[in-house]
Amino acid sequence: MARTTGSDGEKTEAAVREAAVGLIARLGYEAMSMRLLAAEVGVQAAALYRYFPTKEDLLFTLMREHMEGLLKAWDAARPAGADPVARLAAYVENHIAFHIARRSATHVSNMELRSLSHDRLTLILKQRTAYEKELRAILRDGAENGVFAIDDIGLTAMALIQMMTGVIVWFRPGERLSIGEVTTSYLSMTMRLVGATISQGTARPSGRARDVVAL
Amino acid sequence: MARTTGSDGEKTEAAVREAAVGLIARLGYEAMSMRLLAAEVGVQAAALYRYFPTKEDLLFTLMREHMEGLLKAWDAARPAGADPVARLAAYVENHIAFHIARRSATHVSNMELRSLSHDRLTLILKQRTAYEKELRAILRDGAENGVFAIDDIGLTAMALIQMMTGVIVWFRPGERLSIGEVTTSYLSMTMRLVGATISQGTARPSGRARDVVAL
Repeated sequence: MARTTGSDGEKTEAAVREAAVGLIARLGYEAMSMRLLAAEVGVQAAALYRYFPTKEDLLFTLMREHMEGLLKAWDAARPAGADPVARLAAYVENHIAFHIARRSATHVSNMELRSLSHDRLTLILKQRTAYEKELRAILRDGAENGVFAIDDIGLTAMALIQMMTGVIVWFRPGERLSIGEVTTSYLSMTMRLVGATISQGTARPSGRARDVVAL
Repeated sequence: MARTTGSDGEKTEAAVREAAVGLIARLGYEAMSMRLLAAEVGVQAAALYRYFPTKEDLLFTLMREHMEGLLKAWDAARPAGADPVARLAAYVENHIAFHIARRSATHVSNMELRSLSHDRLTLILKQRTAYEKELRAILRDGAENGVFAIDDIGLTAMALIQMMTGVIVWFRPGERLSIGEVTTSYLSMTMRLVGATISQGTARPSGRARDVVAL
């Protein structure tokens, strides 16, 4: 039986999360059982319940940490200045890089909201709203300063987020385009979509997007 | 036991499809059983197998008919003329109207590709490619005629399709915006994204989009 204290315990817990994301992405949450998950990790089912007392605790933890990670990544990527174009470019770069690196977790987070209890769903939706609010603030600042031409801030934010997250559906590393090339193209489409009145040069990926390619 | 011939049989088959889409959208394909589906429809499990010999036959039928319906709807909506702006506007209107009317079937079609056998997956992917090819042809014509400014036809097609299909995630009839208003906004964003060099007037929804609102 797996030990549950110290670094072995942490390793087991990390293995459980990783296996759970993979199984839920492949089978769906309803079809995944704790017994199947235990077999995948190579522990007794009873061991799982020390980390996650219920299957829904596990799902909720995965989703909450996914959103916490996204909000944290955006906090780190957010530029210091107030320029809406630079902030929007950073948001796009961070969003694409974060989700491409977490394809299965993104599928789970988007598809299994249906399986959360009401209170937990509310909590996850609050996190999502906080993240989308950051984009709406950038779009609103740009529109108010006459840098962007936007009809509907809310619709534009949803359209951009779904367009960007959609990258994970078709993007495969090592095919026609690198992450950097995809990001450059999406930045250019984003800036056109929001009617940015800037030279395309400003919208090129920063050093950060290029770093991602090298990972 | 349900009769399987004549109009009663057709009604039963239609009820099976509708219940299956709802159950798969809610639970996932793996977690849906033929027994559960039979209970939902109010027939014996054995009756289902007359229409769909296996659970995968059922899933494949739902997905194939979803894509056939989309291709047929586009054939009916496609404008007679060659103008890329009018064709792109018609594509956007048709795509949004079709998917908003089929939210659960769209979820099933997008999420359960993983559950199809190789040959059937190939067939569905061929249908998707045929549909996306229509959009790429419009974008290419527009770019070649200098009406659109597009960096990458393939990426732009994927970005547009995912942006548009994303409407089903958040759109609810009877809330802030009507389908017509959403479509107008998405048309405007689409035309900007492809760098259309036309007055916004051309990109307003046609009578067809307004009809959809009245349904």
